[in-house]
Amino acid sequence: MKRLFTLAITIAVSCAAQAQEQKEYPKPEAMRPGMSEYWTPQPKVITPGDIKTDTAPSDAVVLFDGKDLSAWMNPNGEKAEWTVKNGVMTVDKSKGDIVTRQKFGSFQLHLEWCVPTGITGESQARGNSGVFLQDMYEVQILDCFNNETYVNGMTGSIYKQTPPLANAMRKPGEWNVYDIIYTAPVFKEDGTYLYRPFVTVIQNGIVLQNHTEIQGTTEYIGFPRTVKHGEGPIRLQSHGDPSQPISFRNIWIRPL
Amino acid sequence: MKRLFTLAITIAVSCAAQAQEQKEYPKPEAMRPGMSEYWTPQPKVITPGDIKTDTAPSDAVVLFDGKDLSAWMNPNGEKAEWTVKNGVMTVDKSKGDIVTRQKFGSFQLHLEWCVPTGITGESQARGNSGVFLQDMYEVQILDCFNNETYVNGMTGSIYKQTPPLANAMRKPGEWNVYDIIYTAPVFKEDGTYLYRPFVTVIQNGIVLQNHTEIQGTTEYIGFPRTVKHGEGPIRLQSHGDPSQPISFRNIWIRPL
Amino acid sequence: MKRLFTLAITIAVSCAAQAQEQKEYPKPEAMRPGMSEYWTPQPKVITPGDIKTDTAPSDAVVLFDGKDLSAWMNPNGEKAEWTVKNGVMTVDKSKGDIVTRQKFGSFQLHLEWCVPTGITGESQARGNSGVFLQDMYEVQILDCFNNETYVNGMTGSIYKQTPPLANAMRKPGEWNVYDIIYTAPVFKEDGTYLYRPFVTVIQNGIVLQNHTEIQGTTEYIGFPRTVKHGEGPIRLQSHGDPSQPISFRNIWIRPL
Amino acid sequence: MKRLFTLAITIAVSCAAQAQEQKEYPKPEAMRPGMSEYWTPQPKVITPGDIKTDTAPSDAVVLFDGKDLSAWMNPNGEKAEWTVKNGVMTVDKSKGDIVTRQKFGSFQLHLEWCVPTGITGESQARGNSGVFLQDMYEVQILDCFNNETYVNGMTGSIYKQTPPLANAMRKPGEWNVYDIIYTAPVFKEDGTYLYRPFVTVIQNGIVLQNHTEIQGTTEYIGFPRTVKHGEGPIRLQSHGDPSQPISFRNIWIRPL
Repeated sequence: MKRLFTLAITIAVSCAAQAQEQKEYPKPEAMRPGMSEYWTPQPKVITPGDIKTDTAPSDAVVLFDGKDLSAWMNPNGEKAEWTVKNGVMTVDKSKGDIVTRQKFGSFQLHLEWCVPTGITGESQARGNSGVFLQDMYEVQILDCFNNETYVNGMTGSIYKQTPPLANAMRKPGEWNVYDIIYTAPVFKEDGTYLYRPFVTVIQNGIVLQNHTEIQGTTEYIGFPRTVKHGEGPIRLQSHGDPSQPISFRNIWIRPL
Repeated sequence: MKRLFTLAITIAVSCAAQAQEQKEYPKPEAMRPGMSEYWTPQPKVITPGDIKTDTAPSDAVVLFDGKDLSAWMNPNGEKAEWTVKNGVMTVDKSKGDIVTRQKFGSFQLHLEWCVPTGITGESQARGNSGVFLQDMYEVQILDCFNNETYVNGMTGSIYKQTPPLANAMRKPGEWNVYDIIYTAPVFKEDGTYLYRPFVTVIQNGIVLQNHTEIQGTTEYIGFPRTVKHGEGPIRLQSHGDPSQPISFRNIWIRPL
Repeated sequence: MKRLFTLAITIAVSCAAQAQEQKEYPKPEAMRPGMSEYWTPQPKVITPGDIKTDTAPSDAVVLFDGKDLSAWMNPNGEKAEWTVKNGVMTVDKSKGDIVTRQKFGSFQLHLEWCVPTGITGESQARGNSGVFLQDMYEVQILDCFNNETYVNGMTGSIYKQTPPLANAMRKPGEWNVYDIIYTAPVFKEDGTYLYRPFVTVIQNGIVLQNHTEIQGTTEYIGFPRTVKHGEGPIRLQSHGDPSQPISFRNIWIRPL
Repeated sequence: MKRLFTLAITIAVSCAAQAQEQKEYPKPEAMRPGMSEYWTPQPKVITPGDIKTDTAPSDAVVLFDGKDLSAWMNPNGEKAEWTVKNGVMTVDKSKGDIVTRQKFGSFQLHLEWCVPTGITGESQARGNSGVFLQDMYEVQILDCFNNETYVNGMTGSIYKQTPPLANAMRKPGEWNVYDIIYTAPVFKEDGTYLYRPFVTVIQNGIVLQNHTEIQGTTEYIGFPRTVKHGEGPIRLQSHGDPSQPISFRNIWIRPL
């Protein structure tokens, strides 16, 4: 970190770098390195997971490890009834959405999803699903591999708000990885946003959303809405499109 | 994405959700789904890389693919003279820092680094290096596996500014992965920041910095400084600490 | 400024304030006051204006001082033809909008406007005008004294985006004062916003917009649009509503 | 507000404006004006005050109207003992700081202050005082009329952090007006900032701070500190410098 700085640095903190004044002004007193070194509090130690072996970080809440849906329920609080087989859970379109039993504020979420080989349909009717952050704000999931649709409805869009920066799809039959960093909103007492939610979305190692401000709820019809809320679950969507259902695996979350 | 909204939504856009007024006010006219669907411009299509096989995304500028240092030079513009062997490049402490030949604005950077097995030393004198964004702002690299130091100098800190959210180190001999999303600053004409730089740092899949605002240059001594600059290279540090040199591999960058 | 701090301050910079660790960690080295004192660059000295005597600050560009419309033109670059009388300029609805000859980036704008006594009409058809920042983003002007309308079209709204925090209208025949602090947007090369514009609006000493992010152009129909632009003039609107025309006086601007 | 848009607008919402694609994509369905008009909730109606007659807005909490110090106390909760005479309150340097009895979150604050004619001393020893927002963050008050000091300690500076954008002082014997818009910070559970405080400072109608992010406490010595806090009073400083004491009048605050 110690580094010789050869640039002509004129000023510091948030002062302006302007032309040299003729007048001689005092200079700040010299400092020593130890004055800007802080030892506490120590960040927590986490054993990282391994993407190559599908292990979660040591402090993560595992939402699906391939075995069962015990972390999930349907929105009425009843047993989640999607299919679990070979370490993978698959949407059952007759059963509707599922939500986590646990609620979350800000978090880092990892999930993997796969569009079935041989999927049919086009635009929004092809592998449509979505992950709702705090049950409110949808990051779109869709098979966008050789499938065009409106850009604010593509995979990785904040649905009907902000298109993704890129189309980083793997093809049907291959697993797509979502890494989502979500900062929960802060509301004023009157129910409006003091700070809106923000989200960073990375798909297969490619940034699709870089700390994007979410404008409000992700509505199918009309403008985003402001709805005051507290912590909320993660919701995975069982979409009514006629295409073959998509699958999920290796889902974990770290409250931030 | 279509979703029944059962919450009592009172208002929309950025209006406040307050108690129902007694008076009857007009309602916004009803909309249709197609009014909020935009088809252009289409995001570019990228074939993602694969962390499991160390391949870069199709649109990335590969900075080191294991073969040579052709993308790098020393700060004087001469040949970079670190060691390359077995697909890995290793710091040569007698040769000093290296910088990329190409300059960058905002970007997504992927790099992997490894502290040698059997490394000795403690605190800042143990596997010390760093990656300087635009040659200005250091994200610290240090062996923090069972090695305490000041927290604003830990691995993943914005050096001498912001400590990491966690310690996600792998042990010496194992590869650590950095994924860094960097938003370049915007300066006013007078040389002060209109918008400071921001950075998100993910180490081994764990968020260490979540869109952290960088206060200014990352100084060894004293306060951050404001130095107006344009695009700049990536710099990797050859630190003078007496410990064994660290290694890098699989480095690529995507201008954003 | 020197002040005894009696709170139990645990840590500093952006470190977390947590429960005391049991372990003894080093403390940052003590500093002296002169280390955080910077003398350059000195801010420019301005003689403030006086709201009581309608004088502008010494560094302001005076856009209307009661004498003539020399700082203005119509959008085609021809002579501005609104009425000037008794130190006041009044909209001529047959002549259309007027724009400043000079273009601006970020700025502080002061202007005063008055709805004529005896004005008629209701909702948007009563004293409707507006001030367009950089010819792009409208801060609404409307007689909202005992006149209801949609809230995102009220005086001080970012038109069709964000309602004002309050209704601070003076009654027809009295002068309303706008103090507007505007931060121009920054665009990416692809024409999207890197940073959207922000605006603070104060009417008659009451905050109506507190650093509100402007979502895009202020459209009469539909969603805000993203239109890449550089510096732009101030536009005052000659609205086609059938009510009596409003007047302006004491307009000045300070580029920031 | 209705306005003909003659620019070549390519896209909307937060989509990018790029070169026209050759391919024909669907266009969003046409909207009507009434779809983006919201009538509720109506903002509260406030009768503005008048700077020319020193009246406060109708919804303001009046902190000093020239009569007595009933809204204030010393930091120990005892009677505030500064001098009140002729509608003006003056620091009594033997009595120390005073704080409001009421605590506040975010707010708009108006206060006027006057350096006595014939004041002596220089740099920080000349009319030194300050207003502490939430008892934590000092906006500096100092006689900077023909009196140089370190810029991050000038009138309107965030003390020892951010210099003012200008020097807008009136001379000793004249009243200076502060209008301050303050957004309270939001803390994480661990005591660090989720969002730091922000402040806009206007002196005599001139912007000195435009939504400046406050880095932490405003320390006389060393770096800003992070101290978790809730609502807090306004504190006015009785500074120990040997110069003649300054005076205040017409103080009011509007919680936001």
